[in-house]
Amino acid sequence: MFLQIENFLTAAEVQSIAEAARQAKFIEGRRSNPHNTTKDNEIGDPNDPAAQRAAQIALAALQRNEQARNFVFPQRVAIPSLSRYAVGMKYGAHVDAAYLPVGAQPLRSDVSCTMFISSPGDYEGGELVAHLGSEIVRVKGNPGCAIFYPSTTVHQVVPVSSGERLVVITFIESQIPDQLQRDMLHALGEVRALEGLKMDWRNRTQLEYVIANLHRMWSR
Amino acid sequence: MFLQIENFLTAAEVQSIAEAARQAKFIEGRRSNPHNTTKDNEIGDPNDPAAQRAAQIALAALQRNEQARNFVFPQRVAIPSLSRYAVGMKYGAHVDAAYLPVGAQPLRSDVSCTMFISSPGDYEGGELVAHLGSEIVRVKGNPGCAIFYPSTTVHQVVPVSSGERLVVITFIESQIPDQLQRDMLHALGEVRALEGLKMDWRNRTQLEYVIANLHRMWSR
Amino acid sequence: MFLQIENFLTAAEVQSIAEAARQAKFIEGRRSNPHNTTKDNEIGDPNDPAAQRAAQIALAALQRNEQARNFVFPQRVAIPSLSRYAVGMKYGAHVDAAYLPVGAQPLRSDVSCTMFISSPGDYEGGELVAHLGSEIVRVKGNPGCAIFYPSTTVHQVVPVSSGERLVVITFIESQIPDQLQRDMLHALGEVRALEGLKMDWRNRTQLEYVIANLHRMWSR
Amino acid sequence: MFLQIENFLTAAEVQSIAEAARQAKFIEGRRSNPHNTTKDNEIGDPNDPAAQRAAQIALAALQRNEQARNFVFPQRVAIPSLSRYAVGMKYGAHVDAAYLPVGAQPLRSDVSCTMFISSPGDYEGGELVAHLGSEIVRVKGNPGCAIFYPSTTVHQVVPVSSGERLVVITFIESQIPDQLQRDMLHALGEVRALEGLKMDWRNRTQLEYVIANLHRMWSR
Amino acid sequence: MFLQIENFLTAAEVQSIAEAARQAKFIEGRRSNPHNTTKDNEIGDPNDPAAQRAAQIALAALQRNEQARNFVFPQRVAIPSLSRYAVGMKYGAHVDAAYLPVGAQPLRSDVSCTMFISSPGDYEGGELVAHLGSEIVRVKGNPGCAIFYPSTTVHQVVPVSSGERLVVITFIESQIPDQLQRDMLHALGEVRALEGLKMDWRNRTQLEYVIANLHRMWSR
Amino acid sequence: MFLQIENFLTAAEVQSIAEAARQAKFIEGRRSNPHNTTKDNEIGDPNDPAAQRAAQIALAALQRNEQARNFVFPQRVAIPSLSRYAVGMKYGAHVDAAYLPVGAQPLRSDVSCTMFISSPGDYEGGELVAHLGSEIVRVKGNPGCAIFYPSTTVHQVVPVSSGERLVVITFIESQIPDQLQRDMLHALGEVRALEGLKMDWRNRTQLEYVIANLHRMWSR
Repeated sequence: MFLQIENFLTAAEVQSIAEAARQAKFIEGRRSNPHNTTKDNEIGDPNDPAAQRAAQIALAALQRNEQARNFVFPQRVAIPSLSRYAVGMKYGAHVDAAYLPVGAQPLRSDVSCTMFISSPGDYEGGELVAHLGSEIVRVKGNPGCAIFYPSTTVHQVVPVSSGERLVVITFIESQIPDQLQRDMLHALGEVRALEGLKMDWRNRTQLEYVIANLHRMWSR
Repeated sequence: MFLQIENFLTAAEVQSIAEAARQAKFIEGRRSNPHNTTKDNEIGDPNDPAAQRAAQIALAALQRNEQARNFVFPQRVAIPSLSRYAVGMKYGAHVDAAYLPVGAQPLRSDVSCTMFISSPGDYEGGELVAHLGSEIVRVKGNPGCAIFYPSTTVHQVVPVSSGERLVVITFIESQIPDQLQRDMLHALGEVRALEGLKMDWRNRTQLEYVIANLHRMWSR
Repeated sequence: MFLQIENFLTAAEVQSIAEAARQAKFIEGRRSNPHNTTKDNEIGDPNDPAAQRAAQIALAALQRNEQARNFVFPQRVAIPSLSRYAVGMKYGAHVDAAYLPVGAQPLRSDVSCTMFISSPGDYEGGELVAHLGSEIVRVKGNPGCAIFYPSTTVHQVVPVSSGERLVVITFIESQIPDQLQRDMLHALGEVRALEGLKMDWRNRTQLEYVIANLHRMWSR
Repeated sequence: MFLQIENFLTAAEVQSIAEAARQAKFIEGRRSNPHNTTKDNEIGDPNDPAAQRAAQIALAALQRNEQARNFVFPQRVAIPSLSRYAVGMKYGAHVDAAYLPVGAQPLRSDVSCTMFISSPGDYEGGELVAHLGSEIVRVKGNPGCAIFYPSTTVHQVVPVSSGERLVVITFIESQIPDQLQRDMLHALGEVRALEGLKMDWRNRTQLEYVIANLHRMWSR
Repeated sequence: MFLQIENFLTAAEVQSIAEAARQAKFIEGRRSNPHNTTKDNEIGDPNDPAAQRAAQIALAALQRNEQARNFVFPQRVAIPSLSRYAVGMKYGAHVDAAYLPVGAQPLRSDVSCTMFISSPGDYEGGELVAHLGSEIVRVKGNPGCAIFYPSTTVHQVVPVSSGERLVVITFIESQIPDQLQRDMLHALGEVRALEGLKMDWRNRTQLEYVIANLHRMWSR
Repeated sequence: MFLQIENFLTAAEVQSIAEAARQAKFIEGRRSNPHNTTKDNEIGDPNDPAAQRAAQIALAALQRNEQARNFVFPQRVAIPSLSRYAVGMKYGAHVDAAYLPVGAQPLRSDVSCTMFISSPGDYEGGELVAHLGSEIVRVKGNPGCAIFYPSTTVHQVVPVSSGERLVVITFIESQIPDQLQRDMLHALGEVRALEGLKMDWRNRTQLEYVIANLHRMWSR
C-alpha cells in the first residue's frame, strides 16, 4: 500500500532543506548499493553539517506526523538522506535491501519514504515508478509531499531529462513487517477512529479486542 | 471461547431425542477412546436406527443455526452421538483427539459440542468442566441448550451421583482451526452485522476488506 | 501483483463471446453480492445456454495459457461469467468475497480475472480501478486482453458514461494463497526458465531446491 | 490459561503494601486508558515514593517465583501499580493494550497479573471477571494471592458495592507471545519436571529435543 | 530425519517383486523428470501388469507398517514404481518435485521412500546419497529394507559401476508437511508410547494435550 | 545443514589456542548442563586469562569468515569456550539448550560450532555424531577445521578411548532461526554470487527481489 501526504513538510521546511542542499557536499549514490550498476545519483555526505541539518528537519516531520505513524507503525527510522538527480541520472529497477547498517543493530527496511523538495515543474522525467507486475504506479510529488511505499516493491527512478530532482529519502523498520497485515491493522484503526464513538460499547470493545490482539500477534 | 445457545433444540426435538434414547441400543463409550481408563459412559450404537434418528435431529439443528455457524465456521461435522451417564459414570480429564475417523478422510476436531437432553434437575453431578489452568468453567445446560467449546481444551464430565445424564455430542472441523483467530473473525463479523449499516460506506468497505482477507489468510 | 496478457482470447473467441452475449439472458449482478448497494451491473444468467457457451470459451483460454498458470498457480477456477455495464452502471469499491459457493466445497478466491470483450473505444468510463492506499492502478484492456489481480485488493468499476462495457470475469483459488509468496515463487520460476540452462548444474540444482521447497511450504 | 498462586506475597509483604497504599498519593486510573469511559478507579501515583515501595515489593515477588516463571516465560515486566476501587468504582469490559510505553522500547503485554491485597471479606463486588464468549471466569483472591491471565482476554472489574478493593497490577511481555503455544511449552516442562527422572534416557532426550526446539521456534 | 526399517518387505515379497521386475517392461526414467539431464535410469512401465503387481506389494507393505505410519503421518501415497539402474546408470543430485500428477489432485511429496530389492553385494556403486550441506548420508540397504527421507533434501544415486540395482520408490504426502514439526510430533508419540503408562494420570493428560494440539496446529 | 570449513583457523591460531589450553584452568563441563548425567568433559574456566585468549582468537576467526557468515546469518555469538575430553570422557546424546545466559539478554542458540584443535591422529573415539533419525553424520576434523551444525539436532561426542580431544565450541543466534529457511536463503545467495553477473539485469533483479523479501520475512 501507498500513502501520499501533501504538505508533510511545511513550505519553510522545504525551503530550509533546499537551502541546505545548496551548501552540502554530495557524494556518489552508488556507495550505498555498489552492485546496482544502474544506480546513478548523488546523496548528501552524511558527515556534512548542512546534509545533517536537512536530515534533522525530515526526521522531525516523521516524528510529528500522526497519519504516517498510524500507517507505518514505525519502530526505528534510518537517518534521512538528501538525494539528487542531475540531468541523465537515474536509479534503475531494484528492491531496497532488507537490512541497512544503522548503529549497533542493522535496521530492517519495511517501508521506504521519499519526500519531494523540487517542484514537479523543475525537472522532466525523474518519476518514482513502482512495478506491480505488469502495472505500475508513478509518483512525482509536490514540494513537501511525502510518499510511503513498501520496501518489498521493485521500483526505480526514471532518468531525469532536464532540470534537477532533489528529494529526501529514508527507510523505516515497522512493528508490523508484513505489508498486508500492516495495512489491515491500519484499516481497523481507521474504522475505530471514524466510527468507534458512534458504536454500542460492546461492539466497540469487540473491535478493540481484535485490534489489540492482531497488534500482539503480528508485531515482531 | 465458549458459546452457549438456549433452545438450540426445540422442546419437541428434545422430546424426540429422549424418546429415541429410550429405544436405542447403547454400547460402552470407551470404545471410542480405549486408552482413557477414566472414561466410563455409554454411547448410542451408531448402527441402531433409533440412535440414528437422534443423530439426524441434532444434525439438522446444527445446520439451521446461524449463530452457531457464525461462531464455528463449520467445514465438516461428525455424526452426532447419544451419550448417557448412569449413576457413578464419568469421563475423566482429557483432550479430544485431533482427528476422528469419519468417512474417507479423517475429520479434524476443532470445536466440540454438547447438546443437553436431560433437565439439570434430573441428575446430580455430571457437569461438563473445562480446565483453563487453575480456573474452570462449569456447564450444566437446560434441555435443548447447546454448548460449543474448543476441542483444544482439557475437559471432563464429573461423576453423576444420582439420576441420569443424557446428552448428544459432536465434533466439528472448522475453516479456521486456530481458536483465537476464529474468535477474532467472529467478533469482526458481529461488528459488521450490528454496526455496518450505520457506517460510512468507505469505513464499511475497510472493515469488509479486513474480514475477507483474514478469512482467506486463516482458513485451511 | 498484476498480470495483463494481450490476446489472451483470440479475435475469433472474442467474437464468439460477444455473439453469445447478444443472445444470452442477463440478470441483476447484485444477486451475487446483495449487501453492496453500489453494485449496479448485469451478469449472464448461469442457466442460459449462450452464457454457458461464453463461459466455456473463457475457461478453455484459462486452461491453455501457460503464462497465466505460472503466475496464478491455479487450483480451482469458478465458472466464468459474462458481466455487462450499460450507461450509468458501475460497481463501487469493494473487496471480493473470501469464499464463493462453487460445487460441493466453497472456492477461495485468491486471484480475480477480468477478460475484456468490448473495445476501449466502445465505451467511456468503466475502467477497472484497483486502490492501493492513496495510489491507484487503472485498467481498460483491448478486446481479448485479460487482467489478473489479487482478490485481496479493494477495487471498483467506475460508472460507464457512454456505450457499453462487456467483460468476462472469474475467480481463481491458488495453490499459494498469499500474494507476496505467490509472486516470489513466480519470480524464481522466471529466473529458472530464462537463466537455468546457462547455469552451472550445481547452481541450477540449488535454485530448484529452493523452488520445490517454497512450493511445498507455501501451498495450502 | 489462568494461574492462581496463593501466598505469592507473604503476609508481611501484603501488610507493607497495604501500609504503603495508605501513605501514597493516588490519581485517576483513566489516565492510562482515557478512551475507556467505563474505567473508574484510582492508581498509585508512579512518582510517589510510597507507591514506588509497593511496586518494588511486588516486583521482587515476581522475580523470585519459579512457578510463575515457568508459566509466563517472562521477558520484561512493567513496573507494578497500586490500584484502588472505592465504593461504586469499576473497570468496564476491555482488553489490555497490546503495547505499553515502558522505558525506551514499548513493552508488549502478553500476560496480565493482579495481586490481591484486600481481603475478600473487606469489600462486596469488585470481582475480576474474564469473558470467554458466553462463559466467564470470576476471581476474588485472598490477600497475597496472584492471578496471571492472558492479556488477550476481554475482562472487567465489576462495581464495588461496599468496602474498598486494593490490588497491585502489572503486565508482562513473554518470550512466547501466543497463549496456546506458551501453555503447551509449560505443560511439557511440567511433564519433564515430574516424570523426566523416571524415564529412560533416550525418551527423556526425545522430550528435551522437542522442548528446546519448540522454545526456539515459538519465542519472539 | 531418516528412518531405515529392515525387513519392511518380507523375503517372499522381495522375491515376488524381483520376479515381477524380470517380466515387466521398463521405460526411460527421465520421462518423469525430463529437465534433469543427469537422470539416467529405467522405471517399470506403469501400464505393465507385472509392474503393477510389484507396486501393489509395496503399497500393501506401506499400509501395514505402524512404525512407518507413526514417522510419516501419511495422507496420500503415490503408486510405487520399480526403478532399475544397469551399469553406468545414475541419478544426479536433485530435489524431488513438490507436486506429482496423481489422480484428480496433485500429490505433494513430503517424504520419499526407497525399498531395496537387490542385495548390496549384487552391485557396486549405486548408493543413495543425501546431501546435508558439506556432509552426506549414504544408504545401501539390504533386500527388503526401506528408507524414508524428507523430499526436501538434495539427493542422488551415484553411478552403478557393476551389477544391477533394483529398487521400488514412492512419494508420500504427509499430514505434517514440515520436517521438523513432523519429527517433533513423532518424538512425543514415542515418549507417550514408551513412558505413558508409567506416568501419573495428570502428566499423561498434559502430554496428550500437547500432542493433540500440535497435531491440529501443524496438519495441513 | 552442515558446513565444514577447512583452515577456518590458521596453523598459527591453532598453535596459540593449543598453547593457551596448556596454561588455562579447566573446570567440570557439566556446570553448563547439570541435568545431563552423560556429560563428562572439561571446559576452560571463563575467568581464566589463557582461556579468554583462546576465546578471542576463535571469535576473531568467526567475525572475518565470509563463508560462515553467508551460511549462518549471525546476529549474536556466545563467547567461545575451550572444551577438553581426556580418555574416557564423552558427552552423551543431547540437544543444545534453546537459550544461553549471555549478557543482559539470553542468546538463542540456532547454530552450534565446533573448531578442532587436536589432530584426528592424536586421539581415538571422540567423534562428533549428529543423529538424523536412524542415520548419523560423523565428524572428526583436522586442526583448524570448523563445523557448523543446527542446534536443533540431537548430537553427542562419543567416548575418547585414547589420547585427548581439544576443541573450541560456540553457539550462534541467527537472524534466520529456522534451519530450512536459513539454508534456502543461503542457497539463493550462492546462486546470486556465482551466476548473478551472467544474468540479464531483469532476471537478476527478480532474484534480488526474492532474496531481500525472504530475508525480511524470515528474520526475527
